[in-house]
Amino acid sequence: MATRRNDPSEEPNKPKYTTADNDDEFAESVEMMFESKQVPPWQKQLTLRAFVVSFILGILFTFIVMKLNLTTGIIPSLNVSAGLLGFFFVKTWTSFLSKSGLLKQPFTRQENTVIQTCVVATSGIAFSGGFGSYLFGMSDIVAKQSTEANAAQNIKNPQLHWMIGFLFVVSFLGLFSVVPLRKIMIIDFKLIYPSGTATAHLINSFHTPQGARLAKKQVKALGKFFSFSFAWGFFQWFFTSGDACGFKEFPTFGLEAYRNKFFFDFSATYVGVGMICPYLINVSLLLGAILSWGIMWPLIEDRKGHWYPADLSSSSLHGLQGYKVFIAIAMILGDGLYNFVKVLGHTLFGLSRQIRTKKPETLPVEAGDSSAETSSLSYDDERRTQMFLKDQIPTWFAVAGYVTVAVVSIATLPHIFHHLKWYHVAVIYIFAPILAFCNAYGCGLTDWSLASTYGKLAIFTIGAWAGASHGGILAGLAACGVMMNIVATASDLMQDFKTGYMTLASPRSMFVSQIIGTAMGCVISPCVFWLFYKAFDNLGVPGSEYPAPYALVYRNMAILGVEGFSALPKNCLKLCYVFFIAAIVVNAIRDAVGKKRAKYIPLPMAMAIPFYLGGYFAIDMCVGSLILFVWQKLNKTKADAFGPAVASGLICGDGIWTLPSSILALAGINPPICMKFLSRQTNAKVDAFLGS
Amino acid sequence: MATRRNDPSEEPNKPKYTTADNDDEFAESVEMMFESKQVPPWQKQLTLRAFVVSFILGILFTFIVMKLNLTTGIIPSLNVSAGLLGFFFVKTWTSFLSKSGLLKQPFTRQENTVIQTCVVATSGIAFSGGFGSYLFGMSDIVAKQSTEANAAQNIKNPQLHWMIGFLFVVSFLGLFSVVPLRKIMIIDFKLIYPSGTATAHLINSFHTPQGARLAKKQVKALGKFFSFSFAWGFFQWFFTSGDACGFKEFPTFGLEAYRNKFFFDFSATYVGVGMICPYLINVSLLLGAILSWGIMWPLIEDRKGHWYPADLSSSSLHGLQGYKVFIAIAMILGDGLYNFVKVLGHTLFGLSRQIRTKKPETLPVEAGDSSAETSSLSYDDERRTQMFLKDQIPTWFAVAGYVTVAVVSIATLPHIFHHLKWYHVAVIYIFAPILAFCNAYGCGLTDWSLASTYGKLAIFTIGAWAGASHGGILAGLAACGVMMNIVATASDLMQDFKTGYMTLASPRSMFVSQIIGTAMGCVISPCVFWLFYKAFDNLGVPGSEYPAPYALVYRNMAILGVEGFSALPKNCLKLCYVFFIAAIVVNAIRDAVGKKRAKYIPLPMAMAIPFYLGGYFAIDMCVGSLILFVWQKLNKTKADAFGPAVASGLICGDGIWTLPSSILALAGINPPICMKFLSRQTNAKVDAFLGS
Repeated sequence: MATRRNDPSEEPNKPKYTTADNDDEFAESVEMMFESKQVPPWQKQLTLRAFVVSFILGILFTFIVMKLNLTTGIIPSLNVSAGLLGFFFVKTWTSFLSKSGLLKQPFTRQENTVIQTCVVATSGIAFSGGFGSYLFGMSDIVAKQSTEANAAQNIKNPQLHWMIGFLFVVSFLGLFSVVPLRKIMIIDFKLIYPSGTATAHLINSFHTPQGARLAKKQVKALGKFFSFSFAWGFFQWFFTSGDACGFKEFPTFGLEAYRNKFFFDFSATYVGVGMICPYLINVSLLLGAILSWGIMWPLIEDRKGHWYPADLSSSSLHGLQGYKVFIAIAMILGDGLYNFVKVLGHTLFGLSRQIRTKKPETLPVEAGDSSAETSSLSYDDERRTQMFLKDQIPTWFAVAGYVTVAVVSIATLPHIFHHLKWYHVAVIYIFAPILAFCNAYGCGLTDWSLASTYGKLAIFTIGAWAGASHGGILAGLAACGVMMNIVATASDLMQDFKTGYMTLASPRSMFVSQIIGTAMGCVISPCVFWLFYKAFDNLGVPGSEYPAPYALVYRNMAILGVEGFSALPKNCLKLCYVFFIAAIVVNAIRDAVGKKRAKYIPLPMAMAIPFYLGGYFAIDMCVGSLILFVWQKLNKTKADAFGPAVASGLICGDGIWTLPSSILALAGINPPICMKFLSRQTNAKVDAFLGS
Repeated sequence: MATRRNDPSEEPNKPKYTTADNDDEFAESVEMMFESKQVPPWQKQLTLRAFVVSFILGILFTFIVMKLNLTTGIIPSLNVSAGLLGFFFVKTWTSFLSKSGLLKQPFTRQENTVIQTCVVATSGIAFSGGFGSYLFGMSDIVAKQSTEANAAQNIKNPQLHWMIGFLFVVSFLGLFSVVPLRKIMIIDFKLIYPSGTATAHLINSFHTPQGARLAKKQVKALGKFFSFSFAWGFFQWFFTSGDACGFKEFPTFGLEAYRNKFFFDFSATYVGVGMICPYLINVSLLLGAILSWGIMWPLIEDRKGHWYPADLSSSSLHGLQGYKVFIAIAMILGDGLYNFVKVLGHTLFGLSRQIRTKKPETLPVEAGDSSAETSSLSYDDERRTQMFLKDQIPTWFAVAGYVTVAVVSIATLPHIFHHLKWYHVAVIYIFAPILAFCNAYGCGLTDWSLASTYGKLAIFTIGAWAGASHGGILAGLAACGVMMNIVATASDLMQDFKTGYMTLASPRSMFVSQIIGTAMGCVISPCVFWLFYKAFDNLGVPGSEYPAPYALVYRNMAILGVEGFSALPKNCLKLCYVFFIAAIVVNAIRDAVGKKRAKYIPLPMAMAIPFYLGGYFAIDMCVGSLILFVWQKLNKTKADAFGPAVASGLICGDGIWTLPSSILALAGINPPICMKFLSRQTNAKVDAFLGS
């Protein structure tokens, strides 16, 4: 499973941005501050300019998410950058109009929320569309890496038309499935939705005069680092004329360390990601890299010829690569299972309590911003509830929508994936609303969207049901996609309802914005993926620039589900058990020792990622951590206020550079220089060769 | 000629350091502030610890100056770093002793001046010893680069014993020659000696409580950048296993620009040098590089086969290389001649005025810190004069010393250089005191030591006198060394007397310190050079890491002087005339338009340096300028206070890294990795070669 934006592991409810000196104001009543400002009706909240900006930002963030999907699968929260950039674009536009006297409608925080929602929905598809996981896992590039199940019936290569079609028929169900529950979740249960709350605070802060000033400065910092990061990506490009060329191959700690994937690869993206991710995640990644590439893989490699045949190619899953992939899968599944049980337990426990008492859930998981909530509960809540309930979405509309889309989907999907039968899909759609509710509720409590865990569940169940001989692998992967999309969009929408609730945006405008955003995502994401797919020859090849690690992981999970453990090399299964159990035990210990000490215990999920990829991006991310740490030591206020903006700048600049870079690659324009790193001996040979 | 520490071209009398908020205090009376502090007798000013520290710093700065000698020949003022580091070492030591109750003698500014004087004398030998110019120009490595006059009789390879002997017999004459004139120059003529004055201000400021605090912070900044620069040098080392490997070969602006020597070579030294040198010098260097490597050399290369034979090796002086070297020489000589005439004119004019009126010279050249001088003239001057006259050095001692050393020298030198006859040396020694006086006086007015210009005079006169058939080339180069050493040490000593005068240090302690410093330099410099010579195979080879550009330039001047212009390729002489005259004209224009507008007109001398070397170090230096410029824009006070410390840190760290790097080279430990830059085509070939 990819670590995705709502990662609960570390202080989930602490907003990742800081509104500097606005905290006091929020401690009073936010809505009193905004009392003088009128809330426009929901139709007016949905402006054309908002969707134009959303479209632009949607493309930007789709590029970023796609790049992250295809390099490591670690996707940080981009909410702050989306919020900042959205505010910046519209504010610039409205100030410009206002100066020229043409401004008809002022920029409100409701409109800002609409943009935020739309952008998150658009870029969310880039993740839940599975371009780095289940969907790309069907392709022959990934299939070739495993000797099992790579017959033609188990392969479906990406093509633009069926990807777009697939996304359209599966992405809207999640929205309809949870709409009727919004009042229960937001008003009755008063669920926290930490990310949604944080985003709402951010947007509210932007629209106070003080907040707008800070936001302006943050945007400036973001812009500066955006330019730097873009320029740096451009500069790096010139030196990558060949395969093993360029800064991304820099053996920073020597060639031996480089061979074991320990090097700093000068990626501005991952330095930025490291600045956003909590220290614990970065340290866990590094620990995982040291444990696997530093200790275990060299030890297993010594058994070459004993544990596995010595003459295998390095990418064969029957050799060392197999240990890397399957041990990582075991850890991911162990961690996933533990958290699934835990969150489900919380959900059921909390649900039963709430239904009995109608009191907000505060006990088992952290209480979040409840202080700010309770202190101004009376007035703020009254006004917000009133606005939230003003515009209703009728339940019959939601049910009708769900059934309609489900029917279309059941009729269409078997045509796209011939091994996925209509009854498979129908069964998914019967259970999906329950799982969507579970996920939306769990996410409200813990901020953790378990979408990919539900997806894995579908891989194993539907895959086994279809069976190996009937293309169970493709069926499993496709089912994973169906499930993930429903469940992910459901929790996203509920987060957005919470944001809307806190910014007085209408549920209707939220819903429409999410629908439009999802529709944009269904077109943009496949197109962006298609650009990558056509532009970079090595997409999905291990060790290349875009290894798409989770594509192989997902495919192998499907193979495991369908064919069992026969494919594993010697002792691999034993090791998998050990790490599966270790992941559960470590998680249990983390929960047992309490929050304070848990932050010194690494996260098994994060540790598993470098098992397959190596430690280079963990080093990038630790560099990001280090920068933030030093910055906080020097000037905590400034670091907290501008750290996320700087990080967003780094991520966005490098991410958007992939657009021109892929266009250059498509146009056949190659970089002129190769920056190469050779050992002394090789260099002597090369010099002799070039001299002659 | 190497641009050396006292470069007059740009605001010569503005101290290059800033004492932040101490200016007000100096505007009153400095000596009143120090009234309570007793001045120790001159024997007590010469402490053992001072010489231990001087020895350590002497080695450090010799390394730095040697590295600069052998890379570009541009040597910035290292006075501030020497002052800071000297203060830091002794202060740390005395605070430590003081805390443990063992301190017998407090650290005084007189002692600080002694260290400063000694370090400058030691590292001065690294410059005037000619290891990057006349002395190394005698070697066969340099001789081989020219087809003229490379017979055995014109070659003398460096050897440790004769270099030390040579320096000992020529380096002390300058000291004795000007000692009797110190009262006339310092007290009667009140010459400015901008560098000496600046150094004295620096030392005085260190010993006020406020100044000590700032100095501590400056030392900290220096230390930080020292470590960074050292670590960066170390890091770079790992990637330089072959000839064209490492960061110094980085084609920052593409391979075509790299071929024309336009690239950023990541040298911390030259970034630091760029921060110390005035903007005008850096811009002039860049302009020179663009004019020569960007325009002229490509144009001349097009004439290949017409102007010069197409089949020559690229380093032949009969080909393109000849144009590069001789046009640079022409410009250097034109600039030198103009300034020689100008400074001599000022000297004679000022001298005649002063002898008539005994009034301080203020007219033709800038008046320097005269405001601070005059405002507290009465008390400060009274006290300083009193202290300066207290300890006398008898004239008979100076005369006797000069004659003794001269006799030894006349007897010894012909044994070292067989073509330099005793009467050549005797003639030099008759004229030397006059020239030494001229140089010390000119330096007092303009801060420009013309030592290398006097040296060139000796090359041409003695070379022509000895004649080509009698080894005139070696004789000329040796005579250059004799002359340069006398003239350079004379002006250095007088600068130090000025510093001593202003810090109440005794002339005797200054003299002794200079003697000891010179003696240390006579041993340290040849040893350091020897280390470079043995450690780096490519020393003196064009295009290598240490091309020692001035060695070839000096040797070719000697060849010109002895053999005339016959060696020059077609049209080269015409171009030389043009540039010789252009250098004079540009200088004349600079003087004619006034100081304000002169700072927009480039310096011919600085423009000439990249003619031969290429623009890469000019780009480094412009990067340094840019950093300083941006820093000053952001925070002028801080940039002015800490800029020189940061620059010194960068220079010192990289400079001292050459010590371990040369030891590694001597021990035969080679770097493990080659960072190589190949064009796409070459890279494809290499990949095919390595793949097969």
